[in-house]
Amino acid sequence: MSEKTVRLAVIGVSGIGQLHLENVAKLDKVELAAVCDVVPERARAAGERYGCPAYTDSDALLRDRICEAVLICTPHYTHTTIGIAALESGHHVLVEKPISVHKADCERLIAAHKRAAHRDERLIFAAMFNQRTDPHYRTIRQLVDEGVLGDFIRVSWIITDWFRTQTYYDSGSWRATWAGEGGGVLLNQSPHQLDLFQWICGMPSRVWSVCSLGKRHAIEVEDEVTAYFEYPNGCTGVFVTSTGEAPGTNRFEIAAENGRLVLEDGRLTFAHNAVPVTEFLRTSKEAFAKPDVEVETFDIEGHGGQHLAILENFADAILEGAGLIAPAEEGVHSVELANAMLYASLTCAPVDLPLDSVAFERELKKLVENSTFAKAVEKEV
Amino acid sequence: MSEKTVRLAVIGVSGIGQLHLENVAKLDKVELAAVCDVVPERARAAGERYGCPAYTDSDALLRDRICEAVLICTPHYTHTTIGIAALESGHHVLVEKPISVHKADCERLIAAHKRAAHRDERLIFAAMFNQRTDPHYRTIRQLVDEGVLGDFIRVSWIITDWFRTQTYYDSGSWRATWAGEGGGVLLNQSPHQLDLFQWICGMPSRVWSVCSLGKRHAIEVEDEVTAYFEYPNGCTGVFVTSTGEAPGTNRFEIAAENGRLVLEDGRLTFAHNAVPVTEFLRTSKEAFAKPDVEVETFDIEGHGGQHLAILENFADAILEGAGLIAPAEEGVHSVELANAMLYASLTCAPVDLPLDSVAFERELKKLVENSTFAKAVEKEV
Repeated sequence: MSEKTVRLAVIGVSGIGQLHLENVAKLDKVELAAVCDVVPERARAAGERYGCPAYTDSDALLRDRICEAVLICTPHYTHTTIGIAALESGHHVLVEKPISVHKADCERLIAAHKRAAHRDERLIFAAMFNQRTDPHYRTIRQLVDEGVLGDFIRVSWIITDWFRTQTYYDSGSWRATWAGEGGGVLLNQSPHQLDLFQWICGMPSRVWSVCSLGKRHAIEVEDEVTAYFEYPNGCTGVFVTSTGEAPGTNRFEIAAENGRLVLEDGRLTFAHNAVPVTEFLRTSKEAFAKPDVEVETFDIEGHGGQHLAILENFADAILEGAGLIAPAEEGVHSVELANAMLYASLTCAPVDLPLDSVAFERELKKLVENSTFAKAVEKEV
Repeated sequence: MSEKTVRLAVIGVSGIGQLHLENVAKLDKVELAAVCDVVPERARAAGERYGCPAYTDSDALLRDRICEAVLICTPHYTHTTIGIAALESGHHVLVEKPISVHKADCERLIAAHKRAAHRDERLIFAAMFNQRTDPHYRTIRQLVDEGVLGDFIRVSWIITDWFRTQTYYDSGSWRATWAGEGGGVLLNQSPHQLDLFQWICGMPSRVWSVCSLGKRHAIEVEDEVTAYFEYPNGCTGVFVTSTGEAPGTNRFEIAAENGRLVLEDGRLTFAHNAVPVTEFLRTSKEAFAKPDVEVETFDIEGHGGQHLAILENFADAILEGAGLIAPAEEGVHSVELANAMLYASLTCAPVDLPLDSVAFERELKKLVENSTFAKAVEKEV
């Protein structure tokens, strides 16, 4: 072990929590201080396996001050409640995506961090947006930051390769319910793409969407979404996602003044215009001409450090003040996009951003209260 | 010259009309009987070049019974008026796309054909949907017809490589005006894709759309469109088109029960699922499994006979009773789609199909009457 380590507790040890436990074991700079899970046998098994105390109550864990940091990978609603409790008790927090189920909860969570940071400005609050470590997206973000693409004209992300079986949805009583998860593909599978979308393209000013509820699966939440975005500069956007088709598509495209960038099947290309679109359009004397293009294909290997890299960055931020790859505050944007898409669909009207978080929370509560869906859970996993 | 020929007049000899004149000269079975253009010098030049009578008035041409068939490639609104006159006077008609500007005009034109066919059932009425001859689309249509794809889940066509300069729009006073052309990219550039879309995927039952008017160019009609379609079986669709981006995209995608088909950059691939999506989704005992896929890439050369093939097929229909590749009656669908997209955008509401053709015509007339756009035409071409 290195000299300085972060004493970390993992809260929620099923599903993705198991991956995080394995990653903690890989990092010398992180020491597993405890595990916590509401299901006693899961907590005990993880504690035995990793040789650390096991809790079933996160409040007790926080009260015991057994760790200085927590990684929260519980069902979505409790990201907010456990996150606030952890921050208020002075713990560094790394939270799984989405940081909360809805924007109002994001605001509460972020406010808790602000208050806590007022007492300890070195308190770290990060989100598990592991795909921000993927060199494909980092390259795109860099091209955008350097102005290589120029102003955006049209953006599109078709991310429909999130196929899930009915067995998946039947694997947990909280899954794909308004009360338990607060949403479907927009909150569970797509937050990564929604985060990258806003990270690279910024936030739209208007959202319109059709979210189909339980269309392909026996669930009550959305499993198929088509959305239209408008950005402040007039750029348009399309976002399509689904857990009900296979093999599905993952294609991210940016049409910009200086050319067209496409990422699909791990292949990133940029068709570079010799003259920016609008300049050419206005000045060319020919009716059918187009700017000359030169196509560049980027040679990118692998998908970066992913979850392990985010965890290490979190530790480095605590130990050495390193800048965060994914500050949790930025997690509100993907939630706001997901909420706005659902809200637009429920109200059959375009939604102007910023989203009215109070109005959306009210709408979501109605869905929870009016839910009549009886979940058929074969086996809690 | 072969024994039997079709004596054809070409009405409208600028733009695409010039290509048609060249094609007529290539076909032994078609004899150019006359040319016609409202611009006298254009008519005269074409008549001299091809050694045939030149008219400036299509009514006079039809009255003279100098030909048995006409090819109409005039500005859009006159497809209807000249088309009706030609059919009523017993001429076979091949009409450029769109067959009319709006659905009510399509209905008038088709009714004229019905009446004329009542007198002469061998009267041929065809539309210049030349892209139906492209082996890429013919292969897709065949796969669909043979049931290889199975039920559609999601379809998408991003066709944004219709880039046009301002010089293009300034090249004719009728171009890109409500009064002269009745629309923009949906009526002029995209009818081919809209026809193929409905030819392959059928007609949606609901359309929602944002059409941006004069967004990228100094014009009054739409030059950028994003639309969302819903089909009777629940399939969703996206259609995106633009004349304001470069290099642009042409990607047609069908996600179906039996796999995913993609046509882009002339490359047609089909990822074939070993088990249909819905069956796998419902029966798999695994949470994260997907059907196995086998990817087939089709070896397709060239783009088919295009305009020349449609012209020859028209002649064969007249001479030998050959089946039409593109019966003009089917041309109403692409117009209805274009109209529905514009109507949905103008009324900020989804449009259920079949479209109310009277209501749309009223809306279009309002656009014509309220137009204040002063067209800057540098040189009429």
